[in-house]
Amino acid sequence: MHFTAETSSNGVVERDFTVGEVPGVLFSPASGADHAPLVLMAHAGGQHKRAPGIVGRAHHFVTGCGFHVAAIDAPGHGDRPRTAEFEQHVAVLRQAQAAGEPIGPIVVGVHTYLTERAVPEWRATLDALQELPQIGADGPIGFWGIMQGTGIGVPLTAVEPRIAAAVFGVLGHESLTEAAGRITVPVEFLLQWDDELVDRQSGLALFDAFASKEKTLHANAGGHGEMPRFEVDSATRFFARHFGRVGTSPA
Amino acid sequence: MHFTAETSSNGVVERDFTVGEVPGVLFSPASGADHAPLVLMAHAGGQHKRAPGIVGRAHHFVTGCGFHVAAIDAPGHGDRPRTAEFEQHVAVLRQAQAAGEPIGPIVVGVHTYLTERAVPEWRATLDALQELPQIGADGPIGFWGIMQGTGIGVPLTAVEPRIAAAVFGVLGHESLTEAAGRITVPVEFLLQWDDELVDRQSGLALFDAFASKEKTLHANAGGHGEMPRFEVDSATRFFARHFGRVGTSPA
Repeated sequence: MHFTAETSSNGVVERDFTVGEVPGVLFSPASGADHAPLVLMAHAGGQHKRAPGIVGRAHHFVTGCGFHVAAIDAPGHGDRPRTAEFEQHVAVLRQAQAAGEPIGPIVVGVHTYLTERAVPEWRATLDALQELPQIGADGPIGFWGIMQGTGIGVPLTAVEPRIAAAVFGVLGHESLTEAAGRITVPVEFLLQWDDELVDRQSGLALFDAFASKEKTLHANAGGHGEMPRFEVDSATRFFARHFGRVGTSPA
Repeated sequence: MHFTAETSSNGVVERDFTVGEVPGVLFSPASGADHAPLVLMAHAGGQHKRAPGIVGRAHHFVTGCGFHVAAIDAPGHGDRPRTAEFEQHVAVLRQAQAAGEPIGPIVVGVHTYLTERAVPEWRATLDALQELPQIGADGPIGFWGIMQGTGIGVPLTAVEPRIAAAVFGVLGHESLTEAAGRITVPVEFLLQWDDELVDRQSGLALFDAFASKEKTLHANAGGHGEMPRFEVDSATRFFARHFGRVGTSPA
């Protein structure tokens, strides 16, 4: 793990890093937080490790609960090169979108391509992060990722025993059912009730598939991109509850 | 409105009252809270205005946000006499339960019987409460009620323009769809994902029926009586968000 830059603002230290070929950012409390819980945060499709929704949530988790948050670029996203195979996936997706065709099956193909690469990348990143003295190997690990972040995060959480609690959502397809059935850690699952891209029944079926004894579905009125801001507070409290931390002040 | 008794504990003043034939309890902050928001709290079937789940939530709302909370006995419940007609409803319900038969259609009949009486009682109670100087006619009004409290609360909220936000849930049937479609205020709707008494699709259909622009479904793993305790915090924050108050500390 190599650190390449460090900035600090609003009580949060941001350190750019690379693990092998994979660039990431580690968000940490400026006040220091030894062996604090770590949340792995996966961005949505077409986004990257510093997308506004990632940085905003990361700051919320860090300042609200003293967590560390790590975000990395998915293959072909952000600062990473695109392979010809990935370019082909994206071209097919764009074509279907332009033609107004259903993109569900194409998205499954994209996520499958990404997952094969991203799961070992996340595990190597986690190995490296746990060697840092301020994180260590004994603190609890959470995962947060919606949309494409769920497409990668469900298979990751199914095989990664260090992840102790996870927020997923705004996605649903049958290709994830088997992996979801192997997940037993607490899950908070987000859906948009009027999602124009994610079929409601498919989303409900994915929530149903988790084997977790504690799982909560939060479904909000509104379209694909209209998740209410208060769900950031809710996710913070979810992790705080399971990691024994005091959450942010609600409003 | 007649006050008949007053006790105080843990920062909450409890005042027993009657409005006509209807007995109730008003829970208020001991510190005083002029023109604070008021939450109307309806108990479940077979329970009453001082059932543990009502008193616990009322205290949480009062101490967490400085709200007033009013609970009344539904017809035939708590300190109220049972009519022969209501006894007959209960006998049929018990018989079906003992025989292991589906109780859904019978519950609809009970709720319809209760709603005809309870809706005007709640409205008269609200009239009386708003005449109290510490409540007044200008503060926001919320409604909280699950199970039978939803059976009564959905028709009440549909006709009562003073109710500005409502928590419902753990119930679903088609007889409420029409009333739900007339509700436009923010709704938080609770379901138990593995409910042995409430059909999942029926509950999801009731959530779908609300015309509210802001509505959130919280579905938790577990059976009919296994709602997680953190949903009390969530309901507190829901009302606090809409009534401009600071919520309780989360955990």
